[in-house]
Amino acid sequence: MKKVNIQEAKERCARPERICMAITLDEKGTPDIIPLGWKMWTSGEPPMVAISVAHARYSHQLLHECKEFVLAWPGEDMSRGVLLCGTKSGRDVDKIAATGWTPLPSTEIRPPLIEECSVNLECKLVSTLDTGDHTIFVGEIVAGYVSEDDRRMLISIGEEEGYDSLGGRGGYRFGAVRR
Amino acid sequence: MKKVNIQEAKERCARPERICMAITLDEKGTPDIIPLGWKMWTSGEPPMVAISVAHARYSHQLLHECKEFVLAWPGEDMSRGVLLCGTKSGRDVDKIAATGWTPLPSTEIRPPLIEECSVNLECKLVSTLDTGDHTIFVGEIVAGYVSEDDRRMLISIGEEEGYDSLGGRGGYRFGAVRR
Repeated sequence: MKKVNIQEAKERCARPERICMAITLDEKGTPDIIPLGWKMWTSGEPPMVAISVAHARYSHQLLHECKEFVLAWPGEDMSRGVLLCGTKSGRDVDKIAATGWTPLPSTEIRPPLIEECSVNLECKLVSTLDTGDHTIFVGEIVAGYVSEDDRRMLISIGEEEGYDSLGGRGGYRFGAVRR
Repeated sequence: MKKVNIQEAKERCARPERICMAITLDEKGTPDIIPLGWKMWTSGEPPMVAISVAHARYSHQLLHECKEFVLAWPGEDMSRGVLLCGTKSGRDVDKIAATGWTPLPSTEIRPPLIEECSVNLECKLVSTLDTGDHTIFVGEIVAGYVSEDDRRMLISIGEEEGYDSLGGRGGYRFGAVRR
């Protein structure tokens, strides 16, 4: 074992990381979508999830304002749309229109579900915590949905073996576990 | 897509989940080790990581008291020790002695590194947030170490294809990505 710079150590355990997306609404009611690798469960009862969003992101502002979000897990066929959502800002682009994904009404909150995703969770914001250049948003999960297909989950990958590459660009490299 | 109970929806996206371990010290200076699936990066600059630990856990008390922790990523050969650390309490068991793992001195904090792990990160506690039945502990990463071997990372798995099973018991089922 050798001491290395912190970035190098992080990279050794940062990927593969399953990707999810947080969906909020802007003040006009247009959905915004941000892909996230930095998320974790944080309570069993009541069920809660935490996500980390950079201060500079448009979604950061919208999460504070909207106080509700859907957390949606994309399947292996959705890498192109996820790349678009991660590289364009909702300030400039209507992400539902640009991806062609289908918004469906939620039952407990205002932001929509994404029909094409494998899992959708409706979340109500319960607390936040600033952490360096990000904020942790903690949401209580108030409803859940699953698709009935057999697609694999989309994963952010590095150079590891065992994964099928599904494209990507810049800092994004997508894959799914090889079956 | 169909609405299901929240637990069922969570299970669809909860695993596979890479496992790490938080190492703290008790008041006598004995290391305690808790395996965690619930962790995320939460700041790039300064580098920070967040972990969720249940209120009832002995490690929860020790994290509050020690205010420092090592986050260590076990390799595929360490499932037996990880199972022990996850199913026994540090109130009853000296986990270093029971696992046979090798503690090494950290450089910036008091809890030790685990020599056998693939990655070790030294973390100083910077903030906490209570979330339902868990607490989020946010640590600034102040030093990092990597091993030079080619072992695969240990993963908490479900029933997915693409993984080699590495044992487990009760709620724990371990694996590694099939190469």
